[in-house]
Amino acid sequence: MEKRFFIQKENINDNLITLLGDEHIHLSKVMRLRVFDKVECFFDSSDVFLCEISEILKDKTILKVLSKTPCTANPKISLTLFQGLPKLDKLEFLCQKLCEIGGSEIVPFSSKFTIAKENLNKIERLGKIVVSACKQCGRTQLLKVSTPVKFTEMLAKLKDFDVVIFASERETLTTLKHALTTLKNPQKIAIIVGSEGGFSSDEIEKLREQKNVISVSLGTRILRTETASLVLCGCVIMQLED
Amino acid sequence: MEKRFFIQKENINDNLITLLGDEHIHLSKVMRLRVFDKVECFFDSSDVFLCEISEILKDKTILKVLSKTPCTANPKISLTLFQGLPKLDKLEFLCQKLCEIGGSEIVPFSSKFTIAKENLNKIERLGKIVVSACKQCGRTQLLKVSTPVKFTEMLAKLKDFDVVIFASERETLTTLKHALTTLKNPQKIAIIVGSEGGFSSDEIEKLREQKNVISVSLGTRILRTETASLVLCGCVIMQLED
Repeated sequence: MEKRFFIQKENINDNLITLLGDEHIHLSKVMRLRVFDKVECFFDSSDVFLCEISEILKDKTILKVLSKTPCTANPKISLTLFQGLPKLDKLEFLCQKLCEIGGSEIVPFSSKFTIAKENLNKIERLGKIVVSACKQCGRTQLLKVSTPVKFTEMLAKLKDFDVVIFASERETLTTLKHALTTLKNPQKIAIIVGSEGGFSSDEIEKLREQKNVISVSLGTRILRTETASLVLCGCVIMQLED
Repeated sequence: MEKRFFIQKENINDNLITLLGDEHIHLSKVMRLRVFDKVECFFDSSDVFLCEISEILKDKTILKVLSKTPCTANPKISLTLFQGLPKLDKLEFLCQKLCEIGGSEIVPFSSKFTIAKENLNKIERLGKIVVSACKQCGRTQLLKVSTPVKFTEMLAKLKDFDVVIFASERETLTTLKHALTTLKNPQKIAIIVGSEGGFSSDEIEKLREQKNVISVSLGTRILRTETASLVLCGCVIMQLED
């Protein structure tokens, strides 16, 4: 795979792309690429641009587009993770991993027992982690990182999904494996994993009242919230994207 | 769940357990537990001991065993991860997560393109991470962490398994989902995930020659080695432990 660079849509002009800022510096100073070297470029779309370096200037690099092809590494199903707000390092971890395994969106939420604070300005940093994960795994559509919502706002969003899988510590009957066999080719899936504090009885009741919510058990071991999210999303994507 | 402490088998004497060192300090100084408080104790076995604090001395705590019961959170299948030697932080990450999700053993291995160095003295540190992960997830059987082996040593060990799942970037036909449906209730499973450098053609050939090896594709995105291991082990355990 060629070296990959993240571009802004507005910097594509006919068959020329202008690379600015960090990406320009990375290409010219860090990777020390040269005119005529080939690179791949992408912005948040379904395509990947194969380019040749045309000119390296002090403040920008000019690339010539050789071809534009649909990226095969983009998610084939839409999977949204509603993640009980964890500490920032865990949220960073989840953004990176969810991007790699093929998630579409992560929506952190606060609920009654959430301990971590919403930290809106730091959430911007997550965008950089997502771009970096896209470069590494080969996808061109970014994982969308939403600003945190409240439990009731999350509840209102659930009706937009074909199915919602809710990891519940209280569930004893339905395993993830069983739940996955009952799914009828859903295209838009949500997954809910609570923060370390878990959910209140009232919150669990409200989730179970939703018609499209399946609550599942992840087994007899107590998983950390980020482990539960990653395993659950991984299993769902491996099962449905096949 | 009660607070959990890791004990040494030799410190159990009839129905009394002596807690020493870090665990004693953790109980008495950090958690500030008191006589008559209840705690759970375990060593690397299938049982969990419910105890009552009998006496807190300067250098040790004496616990009275109230009951000994089989721990329900231990792995129900035997899963060994052969992990291409990664950097130490990733190995630490994998020990923690594999313990949580129910792996039995991790065997780091070096192969032709391995970059990370074997660091035997630091591998001891991984034991502490495993004990801590056991406390958190509730299992009493430790994840076994082996010292690193060479590729050829790994190859020789593979015959001991009912099935070996090998994550191969070159595999295009067999998906993990498909491979999982073909398994006939295996009890002893191995998973092989290469380090960042991947495998040489010769190594891939040698793996494919083994009769019990199934090579699988993890999809169109390129996963970091620790992501591949975690998703693969998670899917296998969710599928087979059910």
